[in-house]
Amino acid sequence: MKKKSNENSTPELIEIKRHSCSHLLAAAVLSLYPKTKFGIGPTIDNGFYYDLDLKESLGANDLKTIEKKMKELITKDLKFTKKVISLAEAEKLFTQLQQPYKIELLRDLKEKGSTKIKTEKKENPKKVTIYQLGNFIDLCRGPHVSSTKELANFPFKLTKVAGAYWRGNEKNKMLTRIYGLAFNQKKELKEYLNRQAEAEKRDHRKLGKELDLFCFSKLVGPGLPLFSPKGVIIIDQLKKEIEKICAGYGFQKVMTPHLAKIELYRLSGHADKFKKELFRVHSDQGHNFVMKPVQCPHQTQIYASQKRSYRDLPIRYMESEKQYRAEKTGEVGGLNRVYAITVEDGHSFCRVSQVKEEIKNMVKIIKDFYISVGLWENHWVSLSLRDYEHQEKYIGDSQDWDQCEKMLAEISKEMNLDAKKIEGEAALYGPKLDFMFKDSLGNEIQIPTVQLDFATPKRFNLVCTNEKGEDEYVVMVHRAILGSYERFLALLIEHFAGAFPIWLSPVQVYLTPVGEKHIPLAQKIEKEIQKEGIRTELDLSSETISYRVRKAEKQKIPYILVLGDKEKGGVLNIRKRGGQTEKIQKQDFIKKLLKEIAEKK
Amino acid sequence: MKKKSNENSTPELIEIKRHSCSHLLAAAVLSLYPKTKFGIGPTIDNGFYYDLDLKESLGANDLKTIEKKMKELITKDLKFTKKVISLAEAEKLFTQLQQPYKIELLRDLKEKGSTKIKTEKKENPKKVTIYQLGNFIDLCRGPHVSSTKELANFPFKLTKVAGAYWRGNEKNKMLTRIYGLAFNQKKELKEYLNRQAEAEKRDHRKLGKELDLFCFSKLVGPGLPLFSPKGVIIIDQLKKEIEKICAGYGFQKVMTPHLAKIELYRLSGHADKFKKELFRVHSDQGHNFVMKPVQCPHQTQIYASQKRSYRDLPIRYMESEKQYRAEKTGEVGGLNRVYAITVEDGHSFCRVSQVKEEIKNMVKIIKDFYISVGLWENHWVSLSLRDYEHQEKYIGDSQDWDQCEKMLAEISKEMNLDAKKIEGEAALYGPKLDFMFKDSLGNEIQIPTVQLDFATPKRFNLVCTNEKGEDEYVVMVHRAILGSYERFLALLIEHFAGAFPIWLSPVQVYLTPVGEKHIPLAQKIEKEIQKEGIRTELDLSSETISYRVRKAEKQKIPYILVLGDKEKGGVLNIRKRGGQTEKIQKQDFIKKLLKEIAEKK
Repeated sequence: MKKKSNENSTPELIEIKRHSCSHLLAAAVLSLYPKTKFGIGPTIDNGFYYDLDLKESLGANDLKTIEKKMKELITKDLKFTKKVISLAEAEKLFTQLQQPYKIELLRDLKEKGSTKIKTEKKENPKKVTIYQLGNFIDLCRGPHVSSTKELANFPFKLTKVAGAYWRGNEKNKMLTRIYGLAFNQKKELKEYLNRQAEAEKRDHRKLGKELDLFCFSKLVGPGLPLFSPKGVIIIDQLKKEIEKICAGYGFQKVMTPHLAKIELYRLSGHADKFKKELFRVHSDQGHNFVMKPVQCPHQTQIYASQKRSYRDLPIRYMESEKQYRAEKTGEVGGLNRVYAITVEDGHSFCRVSQVKEEIKNMVKIIKDFYISVGLWENHWVSLSLRDYEHQEKYIGDSQDWDQCEKMLAEISKEMNLDAKKIEGEAALYGPKLDFMFKDSLGNEIQIPTVQLDFATPKRFNLVCTNEKGEDEYVVMVHRAILGSYERFLALLIEHFAGAFPIWLSPVQVYLTPVGEKHIPLAQKIEKEIQKEGIRTELDLSSETISYRVRKAEKQKIPYILVLGDKEKGGVLNIRKRGGQTEKIQKQDFIKKLLKEIAEKK
Repeated sequence: MKKKSNENSTPELIEIKRHSCSHLLAAAVLSLYPKTKFGIGPTIDNGFYYDLDLKESLGANDLKTIEKKMKELITKDLKFTKKVISLAEAEKLFTQLQQPYKIELLRDLKEKGSTKIKTEKKENPKKVTIYQLGNFIDLCRGPHVSSTKELANFPFKLTKVAGAYWRGNEKNKMLTRIYGLAFNQKKELKEYLNRQAEAEKRDHRKLGKELDLFCFSKLVGPGLPLFSPKGVIIIDQLKKEIEKICAGYGFQKVMTPHLAKIELYRLSGHADKFKKELFRVHSDQGHNFVMKPVQCPHQTQIYASQKRSYRDLPIRYMESEKQYRAEKTGEVGGLNRVYAITVEDGHSFCRVSQVKEEIKNMVKIIKDFYISVGLWENHWVSLSLRDYEHQEKYIGDSQDWDQCEKMLAEISKEMNLDAKKIEGEAALYGPKLDFMFKDSLGNEIQIPTVQLDFATPKRFNLVCTNEKGEDEYVVMVHRAILGSYERFLALLIEHFAGAFPIWLSPVQVYLTPVGEKHIPLAQKIEKEIQKEGIRTELDLSSETISYRVRKAEKQKIPYILVLGDKEKGGVLNIRKRGGQTEKIQKQDFIKKLLKEIAEKK
């Protein structure tokens, strides 16, 4: 959640109400816990929070009590009273109120002219505004509603308590943050809560464990997921699909190690870009390496290992390998933020005259792949350009950038991509086309990208011999299709709520015999299905049939077969995911399976 | 090359002669370079060397001169004169001779009772033996031939000069080592030299570059090979073959990261075993990890991530992943000694009652795979047991070891493996079956292994719930099939001299048109062949036909097709690797290719 308010804009009414709710929350807390020291209480997406320094630790029941108190204060129709006072007066006031965090903010205002942590020094404002609501007085720019009665029909709900370091700095004290949701309509609040409940049900961390797709180990460490056989099946299917599509466009697999000398990244510019996020590697024997934070520089070295003629181009490499980034320890979690990132990355080394064709092929690859995973509908494309005001953030010549940006705009037009120009979203070395999708919860996902790069070949002296026998710099086109397998798997788990399309399902058909005497029949049918390359699971456990079926349903297996006397004739009673049943000839069932797998249903 | 001589055994005549040659070499050097300081001059496999401290740097011509001088000394019939003198006299003698290295050895004898670097302190010998040959006097235990005439018909040859640190320690001075070969028969020497010439031609470093299979980059660093598309094709084929064979025996793929906390390896025992060879990983943000030197501990954590019932066992995991070991910088080279080792590793977690079946299946897997790469002929099996005198080197209980060793011996009998018991070759955690093969140069290769391990499950608390509802430790069976892809690729390159069997060949069919007007025909035929999944290369370059064919031959491509007017009718003139040609109908050629690929010819 990010803070939305902006120092210079006039907030919308809903923002004003949310902000007023945050003061109301503080006022309620103050009346229940009079010794509370107050941090800050801004609005956020969909609501608000307040950071509090409390002796007590709060639970769900306490939130209810606080919410009740907030409603009670609303009925009292308290006024939001604004006063403009001098900095000195304010300091005196908050000293009397024993509010050290407010005093710290006032001192920042006095010394730096701002309460922002990273800011250029400004003149201090001389005067500040304070707002009073009941007994609660806050240092606040406002605006607020005039009195609590304006919040009477404003639906809000306190949702959770979390720890938060004062001013986001882990060296500071951990405060108690109370989150609240607030919307104009009751319906909106309800819908939001339902979506959250659905998201929790689909949470990839929860489903990943239940479906035995991946795990973490305390001995291995956080941020380092271990993939179980069923998780690897999904990853392998995705990998195969990508390799098949890309091979059709001339991509060849390469394999590179996870280490390199820091010099490689000094030259590429990544040492400077990743700095603290680089994992440093050394040994007692004097070795010094870094772990690769990206794949590109290694691939340039394969290109550079042989003399290349213009006739050999384009040369296209692809690789699915782990790269490593030292994310902040507090920030890793699930599969979305990990140290070990398995990235599918590809590059084309080509001539300027070949760039358009290469990019168009990459767009086609992206389209093919996202159709196969059922996400192509509802996409839009961003033409991500430089931040023209901070060109020092990028590497490469300005005229190369101009040419690259122009080319991408032309491609967008020629392929009817209707790409929106967005400044400041380019890569380190060039502009790019980014593709955005929506998952089944309505969240926007940005993964695939095609990036044009004139800078890297110059840094690494990547050339081909042209028709005149001279060295000519090549152009690199970068493309990512699914990004990292970790994030993509998390996305798929949540998008499908674990009920993967049959081609990705770790187990495609679950079989179990009614009784012991049906074991040979079950084994025979399993073999026939397996022979066609279909993934099966045969459950010979002694639990009741209904228990076994429930177990398979919980695993979200596409087809369940219970095999007893009735199935001896060759007509199977199949149970589809979702519960419908169907009677079908065994051979027809196998044909149906193969068709659905091939069609990626 | 390892030093063969042993302090307590009587050397064979050939060893005595080789050792005498090393003194003869030293005598020749002394007469040509009178200021030489002498290190040591032992025998080695197939010959001898002497380490010399020389001002001059020696070339091939100097070796010839020295060899000539050695032969001249032989004709003089010089005596090898032995004297026994006191340590003090010896020290005085070598001080007069200005031989500091000999003096250092004498001091070791005086202080530690031995010239060995790592040794327990013994009483010093009081007396030492010296041998004189012409002007050259050496501190030496002997024995030697009585005079140089005994070397008259002993064929030897000085082969190369290399640098070698005094006493193998890189902190010491780098000396000049002259190597010599020596055999009883001239024929043997000639054969050996031929084999060496053949080995040089087949050197995987040379062929790897010519065939564009892998490369190294100064920016990435030594010991970190980068695999080009053609190298990856071979690796992928091997990987697929292994996965196919192992899937048939119930192995499932897992995927684990390259990092772990050191605690993981403290528990497994590997931290202690690898010590200096561990790569340490840290970041500016306070992360601390090590890179995995082996795969097993990560896999135990996937097993441990869920509650396991005896009904779930055996559970079998396999993975092809890189592991990292900090080899000494001076020792990395080619693909045989690298930091990044891509290992194919697999484990079965099972009950004691299942161990035999598991091991037998692994032996079958090894057999299947080595038949497919054509190395199964000419194998023998080692039953590698503890070093009974140094049991402190191993982890685990002694009675578990007894049981494991007994089980492996029984399996050897039941499967007619005829395994030779070899003490001191066991793994850290248990005894093993090792399989030895011979490559086409006659070198013995030890790669596949099956290892029984009662210790690791106890360390990691790997249990299953047994029939009584109690926790029961499982047993781990480790298996390696091809070891690391790096070494195995080096082996295959040298074994096949780059002419891989067709199923492994990066390009299976090379096509080129006679002239420009035949391009459409060539493209059409390429498509037809490609459609069957056969790997092709179409050469449209404008070089002469014979040049293009030579180029393809150098790439050792199994089949070459030159397509012109004659081929329009559908009868192809195929050129096989080796040069034979054959006329064949296109459809028959495709069938033939598919058959040869399927049969792994």
